[in-house]
Amino acid sequence: MSETAALAELAKRRGFFFASNGAYGGTAGFYTYGPEGAALKRNLEDSWRDLFVRELGNVELEAPTVMPEAVFEASGHLDGFDDMIVECAACGATHRADHLVEDAVADVEDAEALGTERVGELVAEHDIVCPLCGAALADEPIEAFNLMFGTNIGPGSASPGYLRPETAQGIFVEFPRLKEYARNQLPFGVAQIGRAYRNEISPRRALVRVREFTQAELEHFIDPERDDPPIERVADVEVPLYSASAQNADDGGVETHTVRSALEAGILESEWVAYYLGRAMAFYERIGIDMDRFRYRQHLAGERAHYAADCWDAETELGGNWIEVTGFAYRSDYDLSKHGEYSEDSFTLFRQYDEPKTVERAVVDPDMSYLGPEFGGDAAAIAEALEALVGRDRPAFDGDEVGVELDGECYTVPVEKTGFAVEERTEAGEHITPHVVEPSFGVDRLVYSVLIHALETDTVDGEERSFLELPASMAPTTVAVFPLMTKDGLGDRARSIADRLRAEGFEVSYDDTGNIGRRYRRQDEVGTPYCVTVDYETQEDDTVTIRERDSTTQTRVPTAKLPEAIRRLVDGATLSAL
Amino acid sequence: MSETAALAELAKRRGFFFASNGAYGGTAGFYTYGPEGAALKRNLEDSWRDLFVRELGNVELEAPTVMPEAVFEASGHLDGFDDMIVECAACGATHRADHLVEDAVADVEDAEALGTERVGELVAEHDIVCPLCGAALADEPIEAFNLMFGTNIGPGSASPGYLRPETAQGIFVEFPRLKEYARNQLPFGVAQIGRAYRNEISPRRALVRVREFTQAELEHFIDPERDDPPIERVADVEVPLYSASAQNADDGGVETHTVRSALEAGILESEWVAYYLGRAMAFYERIGIDMDRFRYRQHLAGERAHYAADCWDAETELGGNWIEVTGFAYRSDYDLSKHGEYSEDSFTLFRQYDEPKTVERAVVDPDMSYLGPEFGGDAAAIAEALEALVGRDRPAFDGDEVGVELDGECYTVPVEKTGFAVEERTEAGEHITPHVVEPSFGVDRLVYSVLIHALETDTVDGEERSFLELPASMAPTTVAVFPLMTKDGLGDRARSIADRLRAEGFEVSYDDTGNIGRRYRRQDEVGTPYCVTVDYETQEDDTVTIRERDSTTQTRVPTAKLPEAIRRLVDGATLSAL
Repeated sequence: MSETAALAELAKRRGFFFASNGAYGGTAGFYTYGPEGAALKRNLEDSWRDLFVRELGNVELEAPTVMPEAVFEASGHLDGFDDMIVECAACGATHRADHLVEDAVADVEDAEALGTERVGELVAEHDIVCPLCGAALADEPIEAFNLMFGTNIGPGSASPGYLRPETAQGIFVEFPRLKEYARNQLPFGVAQIGRAYRNEISPRRALVRVREFTQAELEHFIDPERDDPPIERVADVEVPLYSASAQNADDGGVETHTVRSALEAGILESEWVAYYLGRAMAFYERIGIDMDRFRYRQHLAGERAHYAADCWDAETELGGNWIEVTGFAYRSDYDLSKHGEYSEDSFTLFRQYDEPKTVERAVVDPDMSYLGPEFGGDAAAIAEALEALVGRDRPAFDGDEVGVELDGECYTVPVEKTGFAVEERTEAGEHITPHVVEPSFGVDRLVYSVLIHALETDTVDGEERSFLELPASMAPTTVAVFPLMTKDGLGDRARSIADRLRAEGFEVSYDDTGNIGRRYRRQDEVGTPYCVTVDYETQEDDTVTIRERDSTTQTRVPTAKLPEAIRRLVDGATLSAL
Repeated sequence: MSETAALAELAKRRGFFFASNGAYGGTAGFYTYGPEGAALKRNLEDSWRDLFVRELGNVELEAPTVMPEAVFEASGHLDGFDDMIVECAACGATHRADHLVEDAVADVEDAEALGTERVGELVAEHDIVCPLCGAALADEPIEAFNLMFGTNIGPGSASPGYLRPETAQGIFVEFPRLKEYARNQLPFGVAQIGRAYRNEISPRRALVRVREFTQAELEHFIDPERDDPPIERVADVEVPLYSASAQNADDGGVETHTVRSALEAGILESEWVAYYLGRAMAFYERIGIDMDRFRYRQHLAGERAHYAADCWDAETELGGNWIEVTGFAYRSDYDLSKHGEYSEDSFTLFRQYDEPKTVERAVVDPDMSYLGPEFGGDAAAIAEALEALVGRDRPAFDGDEVGVELDGECYTVPVEKTGFAVEERTEAGEHITPHVVEPSFGVDRLVYSVLIHALETDTVDGEERSFLELPASMAPTTVAVFPLMTKDGLGDRARSIADRLRAEGFEVSYDDTGNIGRRYRRQDEVGTPYCVTVDYETQEDDTVTIRERDSTTQTRVPTAKLPEAIRRLVDGATLSAL
């Protein structure tokens, strides 16, 4: 059984995750986290929050998942967030047209980049048929299908809304309020962990391509001319880089560099992206990614969004495939500029000059006692047009007369009647649109990667055992407490020990069914790092057994010292050091 | 200014919450939590999780927010989750028809209960007009508007989906998997904290009636004949009860009882509901609800869902109005039975009898050597029909012949050829559908209540001060650290103290702008319970000042003991006891 299949079986049986609505035949692209999975996911999110919010001094917000159409007109999702689809007239099934072409045509790797027209031609040229029913697709139109889930806000269809395709827009759109909160000082970072949605045509590979997922995104707003990341803090961190040039080379592969050397060698172009690549390493290690199955891959020229200066993905290897688990992008001022352009609000910040600057500024002060009689009802509009013109085209006022256009008609005004003058002004600063650096984490794919990388099998007492080698901080249960038997007061004693550990803040489970060996296996399967057994010796000398998941070795500790012992183990102590 | 208006101003200015998408004119019914609000909300959710998941030994799951239509056919939301609306033909505005009638007709209090037809008649009889434009509404149809946000899963409209109107359905629908996880043992509780959606016609009153909100729901699955709540644990808890009979009486009001006495007096009917009313008191107190502005109100007969045996709401008083913040319902087997009926899966559990029972069971074993020649191709179907018939109508086999219907045609079979017999069988148990007890918390309304109840003003040094009297565990920031000046190394010292407190797990903020008095006010406004100031004395004797939000008193403690001092304060110590 492949590791992905083995995990899927374990995940369903033990309550990590399973396809949603199974009672109704399931709903493709939707997964439910059972008790173990929800706990693991929460631990992962807490780790992320610790590293990317708390430790970096950033803040977090929580925005709605339903947003109005205007937001996505500005962000570009309404027009550009499409998949190419083709519907089979015979059986009604819908397929990704670009995928069909990639499968059928030997030398096409990125059909989406060819555009719908060329993809339609290729479907016809290569006699591509419906993979389900075999009917020819040559005559079917290739259509753009928007991946946003649409809905209506309020009754009727006057206010279309969409489920956000990324959590980021909920941050960008509130920048005018967030900058107030930050007292108009750059840089500042705003994070959000929440649901996002993409109406995928072909959801697949368990948690990898789903229709509803959780993102953890950080939007770091910076002044591109003044703010540098504290790169020295990560300069010596080693990062496994699979650069664009290595991907294009015949013999290229992953090269491990320090952040500093990668910047010096020009492999990493943006210091900000480099900073976050370095920062994130500790996160992946902490949550239990197998770092031998991890790399940073640079986007190839064709993959990058047009606004992104440099882009790297973190990728994990799962069942032989590399999947993206994080995108690191320098988004420049793209998002804020767009919202500034489409909305009525201000998405800029005032940047104070080091010293006030004296600037020349051309102004007009039209002589209305001339314009009025000359142009009648159009005079006010002409005065406004002159004001606009002097801002954008000062040389237009160099001659004796200046012309302005109004509703397609041209009006000529003597310059001396415009009150044209060049003033000297002292300016304290200027308005700038901050740039954005964005590390964007796919929480579900990380959960999936952690589980697959943690899944191990070995042989214990001659029997095969499968267990999850999760870090203690990620395991749904930190310590399981068993009584050897429930009788003779052992059960009550074990319960009270479990309650005490719970009160100390540990995630504890209690189990008294089946033999001890079976209970160990049950905990091994869900990745519980420590099991505590209460037996008859406990009643004699007040000690209990602690058993370690990975080594399956055991040691006895006094009951009174149990919480401290567990705390030390969680912090990295070995059983023999207790 | 009213307390709700005062809070709205503070909430927007200081980043607790604000109407979403303000840059695009706002989207009614959607709110964004800014950094302070998101932190407070997270603290509240963590408290809930502690009390209702961890302490009670329940588990938590995380299900998608988009669910397929079949789920809501079964749950009844597709047909029954409607508001009565009327659209003005003149201006196009949509209104709640039942609300218009309630406002216009003196003696109508619950117009929804009258039905669309009668409401339409009342609109006409009372010449009700559009509140926006004044046009007559008499001729406009009254329509049922489903409050679920609809969407389509995948391309086309073949797979309608809806944003869940309550998180509960994501738990109910997965009961077949959850019971496996619970190893088929009742009782067990499954909780979920997550978004839910209602496409309200008239969102209003800030976080009270919104279109997207967060619920914290616990579904406790019990065997109604065997499982009793541990009522003794809450028997002495005092609960403020506003019973249905008190609501109907002229002079009725809230009466405070212990859980035990309320059960004995028959005011509380369900022990399970009583148990959760008692349990929840500690939660409301912990999060900072003003218990003088809190009550449990019983549903009146007309309010209850038809399946709910007894229902109580927790209500808080805000700006003179009582709003529901939690519903406590005994939902019986309604939800699981519905999903069992509409789906192919099993929503029952096997309940073992105390002792095996001997039961009579009628069976058939049709003689195919007779049926085959006699009925040809229909023989197998007739045999099946006989098997189905004996299960539901044993007396049908009392005569010499028995008739079965197949596709509208009747076939007669001699009973002796059916192999009819009555067997005695020993049965170990039976399949039962668990009952559900549900405490359902509205997280946003609780956040809103906590903030409004915490908002206080007083006079300090002759100046009016407004502050949030939040419990330390709820405050977005636990401790703020200030240097008196940034110069002379005070700034660096304060930063390192802040870092140390952060490493100890406190939520810390650092502020060095403005005078100290202003910094105190800033923290008071967001409810920070403790401020620490680093001054020149710190450099002499290594002590800092701790200042308490509520009393504004101060004391000095050695820097080395600061984390411990803060921990003791958070746990309830007073400043003078340090």
